[in-house]
Amino acid sequence: MKKSVFITGIHGFLGTWCASHFSASGFNVIGIGRPAAENKKHPHPGNGILSGCIDGDITTAILDAAVERHGLPLALIHCAGGSSVGFSYENPKEDFLRTVASTVEVLEFSRKHAASVRIVYPSSAAVYGVPERLPISEDSPCLPVSPYGRHKYMAEQICRSYATEWKIPIAIIRFFSLYGEGLGKQLLWDACHKAMRGEFSFFGAGNEIRDWLSIRDAVRLIALAVDHAAPDCPVSNGGTGQGMSVKDMLTEIGRFFHPDISPSFSGKSKPGDPPEQVADISRARNWGFTPLVKIQSGIASYVEWFRKEFER
Amino acid sequence: MKKSVFITGIHGFLGTWCASHFSASGFNVIGIGRPAAENKKHPHPGNGILSGCIDGDITTAILDAAVERHGLPLALIHCAGGSSVGFSYENPKEDFLRTVASTVEVLEFSRKHAASVRIVYPSSAAVYGVPERLPISEDSPCLPVSPYGRHKYMAEQICRSYATEWKIPIAIIRFFSLYGEGLGKQLLWDACHKAMRGEFSFFGAGNEIRDWLSIRDAVRLIALAVDHAAPDCPVSNGGTGQGMSVKDMLTEIGRFFHPDISPSFSGKSKPGDPPEQVADISRARNWGFTPLVKIQSGIASYVEWFRKEFER
Repeated sequence: MKKSVFITGIHGFLGTWCASHFSASGFNVIGIGRPAAENKKHPHPGNGILSGCIDGDITTAILDAAVERHGLPLALIHCAGGSSVGFSYENPKEDFLRTVASTVEVLEFSRKHAASVRIVYPSSAAVYGVPERLPISEDSPCLPVSPYGRHKYMAEQICRSYATEWKIPIAIIRFFSLYGEGLGKQLLWDACHKAMRGEFSFFGAGNEIRDWLSIRDAVRLIALAVDHAAPDCPVSNGGTGQGMSVKDMLTEIGRFFHPDISPSFSGKSKPGDPPEQVADISRARNWGFTPLVKIQSGIASYVEWFRKEFER
Repeated sequence: MKKSVFITGIHGFLGTWCASHFSASGFNVIGIGRPAAENKKHPHPGNGILSGCIDGDITTAILDAAVERHGLPLALIHCAGGSSVGFSYENPKEDFLRTVASTVEVLEFSRKHAASVRIVYPSSAAVYGVPERLPISEDSPCLPVSPYGRHKYMAEQICRSYATEWKIPIAIIRFFSLYGEGLGKQLLWDACHKAMRGEFSFFGAGNEIRDWLSIRDAVRLIALAVDHAAPDCPVSNGGTGQGMSVKDMLTEIGRFFHPDISPSFSGKSKPGDPPEQVADISRARNWGFTPLVKIQSGIASYVEWFRKEFER
């Protein structure tokens, strides 16, 4: 019999891609999550990808209902949660509920099922805040600078608490800047829109360094994390180990639209936006991870997807 | 017009004492909280102490309702929350909701009211876990060893997050071992019962050191914290600066019941119970705090109260 995987936040960017990856790897994929207006643009995994899908907020009750219908899964990938620094400033309570309270529900579910379900928690490099040195290792101090980052860090702590006390196998991945087809918001999405209109001006200084990880690489790392989930709750960075400035990223994108477009910047930085973030990925490499998608080809695929979305 | 203070967890041990203290200091006291079966034994502040009382879980809605009825308070003392290490192991989700989620509700309330309400958060020395050195200063690392301690630490983080981002004036007090009349559970309560029966045996090794703070001193420190609440979210220990072993404490209690009773111990320590905790109270002293209640007189008052409770 095929093993199954539960994926929360199934209607989101990461959840959708996880579903495709685990389905292609031979798992029955059960999706759980709340379809939100903001997710309309994301391609939803259709027939042939999901073996089941339950719409609703992440609660122990909905997860128990999923077990009644589909049996206990091998693993649960907890993709649900707040997904934007900006939103966490506008609605901190909702961000807390989506990120921290939903994680308590997932862990409570696992605790009640004798800790037999492996949990992978996709966290964020936002937990580090402004790093003291680069590249950032997992042992760096966690001093998040936005409500989003603080909530992610609290969700990590609750994972570690349950893992320690109830021997729940968990692995945490701190993702750096994820991008890929289906991400209908954030920098790349805005950049494509602006390049299309020919108004290529941006907030920030442009010299912010980010470690851009393709969603295709990210889901492979999540699959590796399932094997490494343990009650000592290992944490791995999710990045490429390479930094690229926002300006260089935007210049790459611009080229697909106009040969001579170049980005301009406001010079003002956003609150909660650290100047430089590059991952030390030695731990992920120890798990067997190698980032495969080159940034240029990742951007090319994204722009191609954007054009199709735009034409629809 | 008299200024008012909101007190959450009004039916609990700390909430009840806070109400008496602020009422005696000339404030209108509005109590909010859920009357629980376990609180039946606590003396509830009656007529003349509370200017208003709303029964229910701590939500922004209930706090808003309190403002509609009674106007904006000068301060809110957030006494609601989990109150036992043992309970946090039995029901970690409920402990999380009582401690962390309720704090988010309080802070959201304050954020919506333009941060004009001063918040005091009574936290716990449990956030320190097993201390590296004694006495414990507020700069010691926070490495809590129980779900209760981790949830208290998360509630502190959420306080600091809101204080930083929305300039909410907050002060945190990390209380060590609180005791006093009205505490119908924990060591002193058990000890009185056992001494009464003549079976004076206890869990643990007996050599655990605790910093016992009388509830009468604790509420005076809370009143000082109102004046020191600020957006940089100062933290102060709440203790006496003196340690006393569990064995010595029990011996003191035993004497009130039988002249020659002495406690015996199982030798096994409880999970989540650090061996030694003594507070460095220099910060509290800088706020103007001096512990006034001598431990012997504190115990005498407690035993006297216990006898009356027992006779009822």
